[in-house]
Amino acid sequence: MADRNATAAVIGAGDYIGAEIAKKFAAEGFTVFAGRRQGDKLQPLVEEIEAAGGRVVARSLDARDEQQVAGFLNEADAHAPLEVCIFNVGANVRFPILDTSNRVFRKVWEMACYAGFLSGREAARLMMPRGRGAIFFTGATASLRGGAGYAAFAAAKFGLRAVAQAMARELGPHNIHVAHLIIDAGVDTAWVRERRAEAGSSFDPGAVLMPPAAVADAYWQLYQQPNSAWTFEMDIRPFKEKW
Amino acid sequence: MADRNATAAVIGAGDYIGAEIAKKFAAEGFTVFAGRRQGDKLQPLVEEIEAAGGRVVARSLDARDEQQVAGFLNEADAHAPLEVCIFNVGANVRFPILDTSNRVFRKVWEMACYAGFLSGREAARLMMPRGRGAIFFTGATASLRGGAGYAAFAAAKFGLRAVAQAMARELGPHNIHVAHLIIDAGVDTAWVRERRAEAGSSFDPGAVLMPPAAVADAYWQLYQQPNSAWTFEMDIRPFKEKW
Amino acid sequence: MADRNATAAVIGAGDYIGAEIAKKFAAEGFTVFAGRRQGDKLQPLVEEIEAAGGRVVARSLDARDEQQVAGFLNEADAHAPLEVCIFNVGANVRFPILDTSNRVFRKVWEMACYAGFLSGREAARLMMPRGRGAIFFTGATASLRGGAGYAAFAAAKFGLRAVAQAMARELGPHNIHVAHLIIDAGVDTAWVRERRAEAGSSFDPGAVLMPPAAVADAYWQLYQQPNSAWTFEMDIRPFKEKW
Amino acid sequence: MADRNATAAVIGAGDYIGAEIAKKFAAEGFTVFAGRRQGDKLQPLVEEIEAAGGRVVARSLDARDEQQVAGFLNEADAHAPLEVCIFNVGANVRFPILDTSNRVFRKVWEMACYAGFLSGREAARLMMPRGRGAIFFTGATASLRGGAGYAAFAAAKFGLRAVAQAMARELGPHNIHVAHLIIDAGVDTAWVRERRAEAGSSFDPGAVLMPPAAVADAYWQLYQQPNSAWTFEMDIRPFKEKW
Repeated sequence: MADRNATAAVIGAGDYIGAEIAKKFAAEGFTVFAGRRQGDKLQPLVEEIEAAGGRVVARSLDARDEQQVAGFLNEADAHAPLEVCIFNVGANVRFPILDTSNRVFRKVWEMACYAGFLSGREAARLMMPRGRGAIFFTGATASLRGGAGYAAFAAAKFGLRAVAQAMARELGPHNIHVAHLIIDAGVDTAWVRERRAEAGSSFDPGAVLMPPAAVADAYWQLYQQPNSAWTFEMDIRPFKEKW
Repeated sequence: MADRNATAAVIGAGDYIGAEIAKKFAAEGFTVFAGRRQGDKLQPLVEEIEAAGGRVVARSLDARDEQQVAGFLNEADAHAPLEVCIFNVGANVRFPILDTSNRVFRKVWEMACYAGFLSGREAARLMMPRGRGAIFFTGATASLRGGAGYAAFAAAKFGLRAVAQAMARELGPHNIHVAHLIIDAGVDTAWVRERRAEAGSSFDPGAVLMPPAAVADAYWQLYQQPNSAWTFEMDIRPFKEKW
Repeated sequence: MADRNATAAVIGAGDYIGAEIAKKFAAEGFTVFAGRRQGDKLQPLVEEIEAAGGRVVARSLDARDEQQVAGFLNEADAHAPLEVCIFNVGANVRFPILDTSNRVFRKVWEMACYAGFLSGREAARLMMPRGRGAIFFTGATASLRGGAGYAAFAAAKFGLRAVAQAMARELGPHNIHVAHLIIDAGVDTAWVRERRAEAGSSFDPGAVLMPPAAVADAYWQLYQQPNSAWTFEMDIRPFKEKW
Repeated sequence: MADRNATAAVIGAGDYIGAEIAKKFAAEGFTVFAGRRQGDKLQPLVEEIEAAGGRVVARSLDARDEQQVAGFLNEADAHAPLEVCIFNVGANVRFPILDTSNRVFRKVWEMACYAGFLSGREAARLMMPRGRGAIFFTGATASLRGGAGYAAFAAAKFGLRAVAQAMARELGPHNIHVAHLIIDAGVDTAWVRERRAEAGSSFDPGAVLMPPAAVADAYWQLYQQPNSAWTFEMDIRPFKEKW
């Protein structure tokens, strides 16, 4: 692996996708700054990356907090120029509208939309002066469709997509690549397998769930695009997924 | 005008559109509950509606406050069954991403998305037991497009559209008509005329700005649809508007 | 009914929707020119409209034939100014891709897209010099979604929507209202009831099928819009429809 | 370059993009079957690929002709299993609606939509029995937007997108990857540079035109995706493009 004098920040490095993204960019030579709410839970990821010869810095980070986000990204940028920032905080919930409390609605938005805005804006602040960088956001089916029971989650994901679009249109001409990846399927995590088992659904996980590493690879593909042919938005789903 | 034993709530009755919606539904026999932040500013509207023989109740209302929204709608429903709730709070702002403060981002969302969620949910709570009602939301160009400089506004409007979709899918089968009206043009208000004059744009207001009464008529059209052919979403723009 | 010195052309007046549109516009005082492939089948419609005091001219019309379309609309316009042209030819088919013959693919397109282009263009040719008119197109779920098995039908309906958009953007500023109505549900016709019965689906027709008259009313709503607030696109579906 | 026992068909290999796609897949070890209307014009491409050590077969092909398409793909498949089929026939024209002849409307559709359907279907016929393959379609801005003057082109491109969607939904579960690439910018060809110069637009080609090789790389990215994370649709544009 060729070391790069560059950092890649992964905000929301807690779940399976975030961890795989961190591993992928570390394997490609970036120093990865991995942030999640409970930073101590990042220890296994740190060990895995370091065992593979990669470099990673783990931090506790509440991405809804402007100061923490700015501090986290500034620290990364002080280490080596911040080249990539990937926002990957999820908050999937489902409630009938009458049971959707204002607390839930607000919290889901803070985690999945507001924190994305803060992360994107602070990354842009560091990237603009040097006229380069990549800011990627993780979307979902609910980024495009407000299904019954998903008022809170879809409102947040629609909103995050709007942030990504506005930033892409403004920052693209400054050579900052902003993209939005729509993950249109369940991701293969222990949590999802359990939920599906609970729901009594018999299914072939390999056919309808996405391995987190495949998502990480899609981000890597986006990062490798030349600025003459940047993608703003792409969907990914496993081949047997109904859509 | 035939009096109806029904109320129509207009949340965000402050601007030109909201006032015209209030007048239209009052003229059609509804008792209108008009809410806006500074309720005393509703006095001219009250006088105009009453002079025309209509019935209206004006209230100060901060639509971002759950208690106030519930109180306002409950009061309307106690007066006569709440038949219509129209959410019409706007919050158009434009800032480069680096100048979009977290305060602005949050406030625009609270006004244009969160307040819409609260209004729709509380209206639904009253309508569900009797299995009828209409809940309409005012959208904008920014409901579908995150333009450069519009991260805050588009995030809120995308989010509101998601809320409307999720509610439409859940509540439609319960005979509650949820719709989202996309106003894809400037509305002809003193404020907009001034902004355009400041920007030095020479234009024919009649050709590219929408009279607020035309928007009110579109809501009335939606309300008159039978439940065998409900519209969830329609756009409106003046005939000379570029899109 | 107030007679109008104006004609409304309905192309594809054969099915239930087309007949209801013809009746609606006749009831509103238009002389209706009704065209369908086998004009003799229009006799019951003619009798019904005339019994109600309306005026209608029935013609055999293959809408895929440029000369016939121009002739039909010119005849209407010679009778009285062509004010409205509604294109309502359907061609719903479903085949696995490997069983979709080139003949079917081409024919569905000719009926549902090419004929719409010809109709819209020839109507525009008559309306442009006098700077007024309305051209409406009937869309479907397949206008927005290419479902498995619907390559032919969706290709035609997507294409028709593109024609409508391009015409709306070009002709709107000339005061010609172009709109596209998305009928997102089955329409309550004998044919649809039979197909659903064959498929063994038990259903409540009143809840999930749209009465053709409701579709006609939606067109009438569109026609009544002032040019300061025109709709290009709206969807309609019955309240119990899943979407 | 590792030779593969597989063919990649490029239909519409005539323009710059098609040629670059052919070169890319040849460079990756595929035997490329390149088809365009006037096959003799493929000679420079053949020479370039062969000089680089690649394998290519050039054929005259009218992609609107079912027999020719089937013959072309069958020949490719007889040579080595058809693994990839890329449909890249363009037909961009712009006319006011009243000047859009039925001949133009039909021809543009035959080239850009009908030929795509034939190509996709015949490729699927060969790929289905072995349960693998990739079928990619080239889209454009006009795949999503019917702009004024683009009725013919947009109708064809919307239609092609519908074909791609329907095929993706049907064939994905059979392990055939169908994708649609939206090229949302001009491509850097002599023809486009001349048109822009004629139009008097001063521009920096490197900033707003896409090099054909970047488009070819995007197709290569799509082809490399594992079936656990397939993209159906992605857009590409150069970083300075307004959208």
